[in-house]
Amino acid sequence: MSLLLVGTMAFDALESPFGKVDRIIGGSATYAAWAASSFTKPIHLISIVGGDFPQEEKAELEARNVTFEGVEVVPGGKCFFWSGRYHLDMNTRDTLVTELNVLADFNPKVPASYQGADYVMLGNLAPAIQISVLNQLHKRPKLVIMDTMNYWIDTAMDDLKKVFGMIDLLMVNDSEARQLTGEHSLVKAAKAIQKMGPKYVIIKKGEHGALLFYENKIFAAPAMPLEDVFDPTGAGDTFAGGFIGYLARINDVSFESMKAAIIMGSALASYCVEKFGPIRMKEINAADIGARVNEFINLANFEIRN
Amino acid sequence: MSLLLVGTMAFDALESPFGKVDRIIGGSATYAAWAASSFTKPIHLISIVGGDFPQEEKAELEARNVTFEGVEVVPGGKCFFWSGRYHLDMNTRDTLVTELNVLADFNPKVPASYQGADYVMLGNLAPAIQISVLNQLHKRPKLVIMDTMNYWIDTAMDDLKKVFGMIDLLMVNDSEARQLTGEHSLVKAAKAIQKMGPKYVIIKKGEHGALLFYENKIFAAPAMPLEDVFDPTGAGDTFAGGFIGYLARINDVSFESMKAAIIMGSALASYCVEKFGPIRMKEINAADIGARVNEFINLANFEIRN
Repeated sequence: MSLLLVGTMAFDALESPFGKVDRIIGGSATYAAWAASSFTKPIHLISIVGGDFPQEEKAELEARNVTFEGVEVVPGGKCFFWSGRYHLDMNTRDTLVTELNVLADFNPKVPASYQGADYVMLGNLAPAIQISVLNQLHKRPKLVIMDTMNYWIDTAMDDLKKVFGMIDLLMVNDSEARQLTGEHSLVKAAKAIQKMGPKYVIIKKGEHGALLFYENKIFAAPAMPLEDVFDPTGAGDTFAGGFIGYLARINDVSFESMKAAIIMGSALASYCVEKFGPIRMKEINAADIGARVNEFINLANFEIRN
Repeated sequence: MSLLLVGTMAFDALESPFGKVDRIIGGSATYAAWAASSFTKPIHLISIVGGDFPQEEKAELEARNVTFEGVEVVPGGKCFFWSGRYHLDMNTRDTLVTELNVLADFNPKVPASYQGADYVMLGNLAPAIQISVLNQLHKRPKLVIMDTMNYWIDTAMDDLKKVFGMIDLLMVNDSEARQLTGEHSLVKAAKAIQKMGPKYVIIKKGEHGALLFYENKIFAAPAMPLEDVFDPTGAGDTFAGGFIGYLARINDVSFESMKAAIIMGSALASYCVEKFGPIRMKEINAADIGARVNEFINLANFEIRN
């Protein structure tokens, strides 16, 4: 089924205990597109880039059935730029530089060819932009998921509450869930978020995996225990893209399918962190993904006998 | 199969955001015995108590086939006493008072009737005491597991290394695993611990569940997501007691059985934290445990379709 992805396409400069890169392709839509295109096609991107966005990056994604009609190009402009440094624990990081560049004037337009998408992912962006995209859709999609971050919780809570009323699933990390609700217990936080609108809530816990909440049901997915996390940039967007890409492929939004989709997203994210930027995502194929999914089955599987 | 448990039998004073108790029964052997006696018998205790240890607590455990021949009673002495206050996040706590009392002169003696135990759990105690118990056993048990804590890592590392060479499985929490090895990655920490002796390593992560390591295999067990953790005291000892009690019942120490045993231990621990001290452990029955285990199966179970 066709999938619509809204998010940033950017350049990142990254430093981790394992090394540094000065300028590598990044952005939530980029990571999500690489991940989702492992499972489904076409993938319709909505984003904005400067004239500096590399043609070969575009060509690589187009070869994976990612369409760029909804990606506005500002010829004299520059892509969004983010620079960050990860601490030794790889769970915390400092933002060194944020340059909005073309993103400052992003006013997304949904092309006619994108109408009718059944699956929509709103990557981390100003909630006003997320709302604008949803308002332009003629048909209510089968599933709308969104990601957000502490910055929008701090600065745009009113808009966030509006978009929460328009989506099916919110994906946040544990600290964002706590900040959003004032609840320390993640069970209580998820319930509070469900009251704000989203029927489904995924709380990402980094190296501790993720929790999916729906009605009174909970699914706990482990993360793959890794010796080294080389670069966590994009892991959350890769997870989200893999999650919704898999659901679009099997075209089912039941709780059971979402459990499997979380494992798929986790498998892709566990590859993403093995190298800087999306490098590893460009190397893996279906067999690699299948092998990692089998590792997840072995990791989580148990049988009780009496 | 018979199970030998070594640990403390104590009084605790506890404060949590949910209330306080001034004097409640506690200690690693007490919690482990309540948990293990849900699955197997007899359970042979090795500990030391003062004349203040309540007869009714002893009688309740004896009714569950827990034997006290190895529990030294110092008539004029007082039980080990610990007082602690939990923070709002329930993951961190301050120790307010530690009175060793009779524990200061604990020199365990293994009664002849305890010889031949196939399953041995060394609860958190001075490693010299753990070594002394193992040296008194005439037959190598089928499985020896142990727990320890940061205090012994700080003060008795040489003895710890000795006992690591004598056991099969070490159970520590994540911060202790990192402290013990200097490795931040839990995968690297587990490998480093395996090089110190124990073939099996369980790393407990509190609300994030537990990891079991054996050779190159890893099992990730979730914790039950709870709205409230009323009192975490004894959860680790309950987990350990449930783990080894279940293995003693099915009399199998394969990796697959250990996975199931972790779920059993987790199910009991999730009950333990619902009330102060071991109160909840005294209320639950086999049906309650079965119901919670089913919740764990639903929590962790997923199926992939393509």
